Amino acid sequence: MDHISEIFDLAIVGGRCLTLDPEYSEISDSLILIRNGQISWLGERKDYRGRYQAARTLQASGKLIMPALINAHTHLSLSLYRGLGTDLKLHNWLRRVIWPLEKKFCTPDNVYLGSCLSLLEMIKSGTGTLADMNFFANYAAKAVDESGLRGFIGEALFSTPTPSIQDPQDGFNVTADLVNRYKGHPLIHPYIVLHAPFTCSDQLYKEATEHAKSWGIKVCSHVAETITEVDQIRERYQLTPFEWLDSLGALNPDFIAIHAVHLTDHDKKILAERNVGVIHNPHSNMMLGSGICPVPELAALGIRVGLGTDSASSNNSLSMLFELQTAAKLHKMSSLDPSILPARQVLNMATSVNADILGLKGVTGHLAAGFSADLILIDPSSPNMIPLHDAYAQIVYSMENSNIESLVVAGRLIMEKRKILTMDEELILKEVNNWMKASSVYDKY
Amino acid sequence: MDHISEIFDLAIVGGRCLTLDPEYSEISDSLILIRNGQISWLGERKDYRGRYQAARTLQASGKLIMPALINAHTHLSLSLYRGLGTDLKLHNWLRRVIWPLEKKFCTPDNVYLGSCLSLLEMIKSGTGTLADMNFFANYAAKAVDESGLRGFIGEALFSTPTPSIQDPQDGFNVTADLVNRYKGHPLIHPYIVLHAPFTCSDQLYKEATEHAKSWGIKVCSHVAETITEVDQIRERYQLTPFEWLDSLGALNPDFIAIHAVHLTDHDKKILAERNVGVIHNPHSNMMLGSGICPVPELAALGIRVGLGTDSASSNNSLSMLFELQTAAKLHKMSSLDPSILPARQVLNMATSVNADILGLKGVTGHLAAGFSADLILIDPSSPNMIPLHDAYAQIVYSMENSNIESLVVAGRLIMEKRKILTMDEELILKEVNNWMKASSVYDKY
Repeated sequence: MDHISEIFDLAIVGGRCLTLDPEYSEISDSLILIRNGQISWLGERKDYRGRYQAARTLQASGKLIMPALINAHTHLSLSLYRGLGTDLKLHNWLRRVIWPLEKKFCTPDNVYLGSCLSLLEMIKSGTGTLADMNFFANYAAKAVDESGLRGFIGEALFSTPTPSIQDPQDGFNVTADLVNRYKGHPLIHPYIVLHAPFTCSDQLYKEATEHAKSWGIKVCSHVAETITEVDQIRERYQLTPFEWLDSLGALNPDFIAIHAVHLTDHDKKILAERNVGVIHNPHSNMMLGSGICPVPELAALGIRVGLGTDSASSNNSLSMLFELQTAAKLHKMSSLDPSILPARQVLNMATSVNADILGLKGVTGHLAAGFSADLILIDPSSPNMIPLHDAYAQIVYSMENSNIESLVVAGRLIMEKRKILTMDEELILKEVNNWMKASSVYDKY
Repeated sequence: MDHISEIFDLAIVGGRCLTLDPEYSEISDSLILIRNGQISWLGERKDYRGRYQAARTLQASGKLIMPALINAHTHLSLSLYRGLGTDLKLHNWLRRVIWPLEKKFCTPDNVYLGSCLSLLEMIKSGTGTLADMNFFANYAAKAVDESGLRGFIGEALFSTPTPSIQDPQDGFNVTADLVNRYKGHPLIHPYIVLHAPFTCSDQLYKEATEHAKSWGIKVCSHVAETITEVDQIRERYQLTPFEWLDSLGALNPDFIAIHAVHLTDHDKKILAERNVGVIHNPHSNMMLGSGICPVPELAALGIRVGLGTDSASSNNSLSMLFELQTAAKLHKMSSLDPSILPARQVLNMATSVNADILGLKGVTGHLAAGFSADLILIDPSSPNMIPLHDAYAQIVYSMENSNIESLVVAGRLIMEKRKILTMDEELILKEVNNWMKASSVYDKY
């Protein structure tokens, strides 16, 4: 009788594995063995010594396997407003559409419902980890927890009342509640979220810096997204937004700057010196006519630049694939140099660089033994992917969401053959449609 | 016994029809009756007087119906090289990758095979009409004819030998053969194709203009795609590419200028005065780092600007959806104004404007009685399309190819529920993979 030397939760057998590790090593016919959410072993199938038994086996022959994507900036609940206010500038879009809509419709139930909707779309486009900015963030956390994805969750703080916080003094208590509630949770990571320099006071940024340090968590904020913002901050403080934040002591490796579109040379120097993480959201910046974050220049200065989608209201998609493709092309175009941001570099941005910025280095972002089993299976057999001369180029420039067949996060099968296993897709879509009909939102904004 | 007053080939029953006619009238619960490839009647289902019988009925309740997309510039056979030479500048990409590959692999069989591959991808992304530039163009024509799509087919002419034409003097004979072969064909439209000012002589452009007039067909050419090209032409003729073409008498409403990225004010004036049609290929221009065609400015001058994908080797996708989305966002970004190129305008570019430029005004590009029945059925029930506040915005900014359920061209069902009916998808993909393995193309370029 055979001796079963090892027992695993999940075995992924066969397939070409693009590990995206720093050397981009590939495994041509791979075996991935998963236990307790982690990759216990991965390598060429033929190299595995001994025998194994797995509670569950996924056959992956003919597929590509790569790390699940990380979306380092979004607003989960805003997918309820997808398509409303398209073609308005950021400040008008916020003041005329998003903020009035939020005033009316931003309730715990709607944050939960919108988050569920967004999570469906993210799962179907291969996202395993996301970083959110929301009101009633505990309801976004609930949805993310149910989805099985890994989420950075933060209550959006302003210096003025918000739909969820009447007294701005309460902001850090709300965040502290989140921190306490999810202490030790393997996949829900609370962090501090400040809306932007034009809506948050110096006091807020200073306190955020202290709390983040004492709680051991990250801080994120929109910074330098539009010329309007930069002008406002210059008028108010005679400093650029980043100079102002630096003068408050707010910038450090745990600070995540969303957008960073309009930068002076001095700003870039500050970002490099403070080792701030920057999240580039090309679709949203294009859609709102905000401008272009100088990604190649920042990367050349050693600044970590990751990728996010921003919300479905300013994108209007939550697919990281569109973001990968556009990031690569946008910067080739703006520099008139097609060698800028090659496929592998943008794939890094959406995986290992995002992981590093979010504090998940060594946890996720590439596939290796000891890492969380966060991965996608890709079916490359459709006309858009053939012939597969260069898998990396094809994933970035040619792949569609429908090529993503399955998603595993922390060893749990979240989607299998396009069917979401952790959430009731049909029910959620029905509830969103019911909400839309009942609210007549389109007539009201 | 009931009297059947009318008998049709195809009835499309139910669904919300976005006709894209100049007033963008919508039909909320539509009926479309098709006979001999044309729309005989369309309108609200309840308004149809009398009874009808149809050989075939498509149920479209819950779907969106809109005109099939038009891809006004591509190179069908180049999808065989998809992903090769990514990250090279246009002239290097042509000289180091595409031209050597074509020298080795550009055979009638491969043009046919590559065209079949491209057509599969186009069908799956809702394209009903395409304009091609190819060697051995008669083999591209054969593939398009079999696919059931409408195609503008032209042999790419150079002043030097090409893989298909040893003696450049023969170029117009080859085109004349195409014209004669497809005389009276309802869907295959031969046209004259000149590669570019930097590869074609004044004589070629002059003769093309005469032949086009006598044959009653269009002429297309890449023009002003890169700074390198503009510099070369300036050095050679002390004129910009468009000034040079105008000095030859080559510019008129039947001339289709592909790219038109680098333009002087004088060039724009010429384009407007000669009523030249311009085809914008945003993805290819971004990918090759060529620059940005000044679309909003040209449109404001009354110049017709349509949309194309260019080839799968410089895009690397043939989906017009990516092109719609990127065109809208690229120009918002470059003008820092999100009101530029709203969703409906880019939808027009890919339908009625392209139709006008190709000489199909009144034939296709929107849905109306008397027009060819060229349409797509969209299933908007997936998470990325919900809630459907604004169908036009959703189609441009959120839709994925997988939402396109069915395609009808000239009344013929080309794809139904994602299954291609006119071509053997599985066989074609197998043959492409066999070609790839046999040719070891990746090692050779």
